[in-house]
Parts: sequence; C-alpha cells; structure tokens
Amino acid sequence: MKHSNKSLLVLNPGGEQIMRAVSFRDKTVFLVDKPRPEVAADQVLLQPLMAGVCNTDVELFMGYYQFEGTPGHEFVSLVEKAPGDPQLVGKRVVCEINCGCGQCSWCKTGNQHHCPTRKVIGIKDWDGAFAEYVKAPLANVHLVDEAISDEAAVFVEPLAAALKISQQIHINSASRIAILGDGKLGLLIALALRHYNPGILLVGKHRQKLNLAVEQGVSTFHIESPDLLPDLGKILGSFDIVIEATGKEDGIDHGLNLVKPGGAIVLKTTSHSPSVIQLSRVVVGEISVVGSRCGDFGLALAFLQNKWVNVLPLIEAVYELDDFRKAFDHARQPGAKKILVRF
Amino acid sequence: MKHSNKSLLVLNPGGEQIMRAVSFRDKTVFLVDKPRPEVAADQVLLQPLMAGVCNTDVELFMGYYQFEGTPGHEFVSLVEKAPGDPQLVGKRVVCEINCGCGQCSWCKTGNQHHCPTRKVIGIKDWDGAFAEYVKAPLANVHLVDEAISDEAAVFVEPLAAALKISQQIHINSASRIAILGDGKLGLLIALALRHYNPGILLVGKHRQKLNLAVEQGVSTFHIESPDLLPDLGKILGSFDIVIEATGKEDGIDHGLNLVKPGGAIVLKTTSHSPSVIQLSRVVVGEISVVGSRCGDFGLALAFLQNKWVNVLPLIEAVYELDDFRKAFDHARQPGAKKILVRF
Repeated sequence: MKHSNKSLLVLNPGGEQIMRAVSFRDKTVFLVDKPRPEVAADQVLLQPLMAGVCNTDVELFMGYYQFEGTPGHEFVSLVEKAPGDPQLVGKRVVCEINCGCGQCSWCKTGNQHHCPTRKVIGIKDWDGAFAEYVKAPLANVHLVDEAISDEAAVFVEPLAAALKISQQIHINSASRIAILGDGKLGLLIALALRHYNPGILLVGKHRQKLNLAVEQGVSTFHIESPDLLPDLGKILGSFDIVIEATGKEDGIDHGLNLVKPGGAIVLKTTSHSPSVIQLSRVVVGEISVVGSRCGDFGLALAFLQNKWVNVLPLIEAVYELDDFRKAFDHARQPGAKKILVRF
Repeated sequence: MKHSNKSLLVLNPGGEQIMRAVSFRDKTVFLVDKPRPEVAADQVLLQPLMAGVCNTDVELFMGYYQFEGTPGHEFVSLVEKAPGDPQLVGKRVVCEINCGCGQCSWCKTGNQHHCPTRKVIGIKDWDGAFAEYVKAPLANVHLVDEAISDEAAVFVEPLAAALKISQQIHINSASRIAILGDGKLGLLIALALRHYNPGILLVGKHRQKLNLAVEQGVSTFHIESPDLLPDLGKILGSFDIVIEATGKEDGIDHGLNLVKPGGAIVLKTTSHSPSVIQLSRVVVGEISVVGSRCGDFGLALAFLQNKWVNVLPLIEAVYELDDFRKAFDHARQPGAKKILVRF
C-alpha cells in the first residue's frame, strides 16, 4: 500500500501552517485554505488517507444540525503528531468520533458517546476529515492492522455502528430477523449480523444492492415498494426483531407491520423529520423500540482484519479531495453506494 | 363479606334466561335485558360481584375500537357454572381478560394475550362484566383469597398491568425511576414498583392524588404543567427509567425530556391519537421504548393478599348496576379516581 502525501503545507506570513479543507456553509460546499489544527498534549494530529461520505454529511450540508465547518467522520489516517504517545507517529489509525469532556460520569465509564457536552468529529463542534489534517483525542485512535486496506478501514465507523445492535439486544441464531433498507448501513448490518444469525433477511427495493449481500451469503427479499411490507408480513410471517435502516421517518411503521408481539424494532434512522406513530401499537404489542447509534471500533476492526465481511463491493467510486464537489454530488444521487475521497 | 344475588332471572317464553346488562352503541350507554350467556365445557359462567370503570371503557364508548356490546374488564365474580371443574361453583374469582384461540404458538406458550385472533373480555368481541352474568374461559379464572375484599379484587387486572413492567425490564433499587402521570394507573404503578425501587418518583399535576401515594410512602413531585418537565429534568437530573402513564399521546415526548441516554421509557398509554415524535432523539440517545400491557394475575393477587399495597384509597365511589349511567358520567369527570359498580 502506498500513502502519498499530497498536502502542500504553506507557511503564511503570520507563521500559521495552512491546509486545504472542505467546508459546509449555507448549503454550499467550499474548498478552502485554513489553518492546520493545533494539538494539545492529549490529542493527535492526523493526516487522512481516505474518508467516506455518509448520509449524515448530506444532512449536515442541508443545515439540519446547525453544523458549519469541515465534515468527514469515516476515515483512516496516518498519525502526524502525538505528543502524548510519540510512538504513534507514522502509524495508520482509525478514530472514534465522539469527543467527551473526560470529566462526567459518562466519560468516566467509557460512554463518552453519551457525554452531554460531547463534540463529534465532523458532525458537531469539531472539524472533520475532509481536510489534509484533522485533530482528535489521543484516546480515540485505534491502530489499523496491515491486513486492512485503506478502503476497508474507512468502513470501521459504520461497521461498528452496524455491530452495535449485537451489543444492545441478544441476536441469536434462532431469532427471525429482518433488516429494512438496502442502503449502505442496511447492507453493512446484514453482512455483520449474519455472523450472529445466518438466516437474517435483508429487505430492500434495489435488486442490484441486494445482490451485493447475496454474493456474501445474505438472504434477501426484493420489494417494489414499502407499501407492500404489510403483505410481506402476511407472506413471510412476522419477525422477532426488525432492524429499521430505511433512512425514512416512516420506517418505524413498516417495522410495526412486520414485528411479532413482544418483539423488538431496532432504529438506526436519524431523520430530521418527525415521525407520526400510533403508539398504541407499541403498547398493545408490547414491542421494544431500541435506538442504536455508535459502536465498538475494536469489534469492527476484528471483522475487517479477519475478512469476516468484505466491504469493498460497497464502494461506488473514489475521488480526490479537490474533486470533493463531484464526490458529494455523486454521493447524493439516489441509490449511490459508498463514495470515498482519497488524499 | 356479604354477597347478595340481585339478579332476577326471568324465563322468557322461548325458554331463554334473561339478564340485565350495560351495552355501548353509537356513543350511548344502554341498560338492556339480554340473554344470559351459554357456556361451553371449557368455560365458566360468572356472576359479577363488583366491577371497575377503566379509561379504556371510555375509549370503547367513544367508538375508538369498534366495540359494541357489554364493557367491563376489571371485576370479581362468583362462579355460577363450571362444567369443566364443578368444584369451582360458588367460589370467588378474578378473571384474565385475553381469550386466545388455544391453538396457536402464542396460546400454547402461555402468551394468549398476544394470540392474533384473541378476544378480550369487555374490550374485543367478548361481552364484559357490567352485567348480571359474564362468561369466561375456565383457564382464565384465579381464586381470590378471603383476605382480599371485593373492592380490592377489582384492582387485580390494572395492578397486574402495573406490575408487568417489573417482568419486562429489570427494576433494581439503584435505578433512578420516574412515573409520569398520577392517574389511576400511575398511582398503581407507584404503589407496586416501590417494592422494587423504594425511591421511585411519581410526577403528577394533582396534589390530592399525589398525596394518596405519599400516604403509602411514595416520593412524589408536583408539577403545574407537563410543559415544565424539561425544567424538571434540569432540576432533578435525568432518569434511568421513565414510565409514561399520562394517558396522552405526547407523553413519550415528556419521557424523552427526562430519560438518560441509554435509558428506557416504558409506555403504558394506549391513546387512539397518533403521536408525533422526533425519533432521532431515540436513536442518538440509544433509548429503549418498551410497550407494556397486561400482567400476571398471580403476582397482583399476592400483592393484595399480603397487603403490600392498599388500593382502597383509589376508590372514588361505588354505584349500583342500575345507576351505571351515573357511574360512567362520574368516571369520565377529569381527575376522577376509580369508580366501582356493585351488583
């Protein structure tokens, strides 16, 4: 693997080192020169090698979360500076994205992703990885084994999010489990959770995407329209667990049409639009609705290092940083698979 | 305890025995004479001694669930006929309300409350207990110990529903738990779950009702308006578990304002109105939302027999069957406690 360093550091008149970065503002993508981040003793300076565009980036671009700055939260980097652990310099790492205060009870129990004052790399109050340099807390980095390519390493963050489901509810092989949505996250969930439940069923609208899962042994069901899901329930019977990864605010309704009484719906969609739900269905069916977000990077790295999943077929295209606008437009096309940016 | 039999059985010209019963139709309460139910070999004929009016009865009256017939699902009875177990005749019993098909996998695993073709006494396709006689599956009846008064026995069904929460999620003494809603069910939940978590906090708008809980050792918090609940969260901190028993479709929002990341909201409200929810709050907070309905009559009977809760202060008034309209109007008054009907 070759890691070419294309950053052209410029020493500006004030002595600040300048870098090239993407910036979102007013529903516009800017490519800007901005100061290279300064790092504190407990932080690292990272030089991204490759980063992925996520649907969350599209929502940030649309202004749904009042984010202005540099996006990018799925990435693999080389360590440029690590004052707190100099041996890390030059190493290839991936990086957890939640940056907690370090002082609260959440942070002190390893749950910085729930720290109430957390910042999130590339998502909330912390510039992300679509830039020549990005900083991160030292505690957030994980070494990447050489068996994992840069392209695969970009998937650690979403794969960890997919695997998080297995850490929240007991996925056993006897359960009847359906995943709704054949987008990038739905596919990753299918590939990952098949190790816990080989019969897991991926339900989606796009034959081509479903085939990506079929090629890795996943059972799939093609459906022309989500409106047909109630009929699917009648045909296939209902499910112990339905994993909702549709990206749509009405995904939970489809979940309610397919889940068994006493069963669970795992929610992965973070739509900015409110959902309208007949909650009496949840009460009468004694359904559990479980929100699921970020996961364990160590677990995801083990999956990639051991080739338990092959994420490479999920890649649609790779762009250079200077072509970020093209990359982003491509990522926004309906049905696009994962778009990567190379540095 | 005295059980006077006020039924006046009439042999009509066709030979059918007639009884007095309440009937709901077209948002009207009728008091009618109708045939006394015939019972099959696996059923019992029960003579209600006392029955309670539930908010669900009000929803049935309003026509929300397409129910027409005799309501009444909280009741204690004497057994009049029991072809399958003649020794039951004359015994005092309470009765589980879900009548499953007996053949499906739900029924065969003791989960007839989830049988997809179930009938529900006084709620769905099965006439209820506001009548001189009601029939029930033999398998649904539970003997009532003489230590439990008729008035207390009427509470077995809602108390079992309150206790169900403890069977779905682990309520331990270290958890911070809030109950939202000081209605009848909220009060029962507080009295019951205090045995699992003595510090459980009941939050409500009605000082008088909260005081009923205070008198039995429950911690309470009076709040003028649910709009103040976000402030309550700031004052009191957030909760591991929030039990939503507000009876309102926006109760879940208040739950989301009070629950900790990673915590659980237990839903008890079965409003006919849809709820509008920002589900990304559930996903980002990794909240579990758990629907909770019917519970274990044996557990509720143990609570009453051992006087672990005193439900009698929850009674507002007792009416005769012939005064059912008055009873029902009383029960519909905002803030009314439990209205009982005596036979």
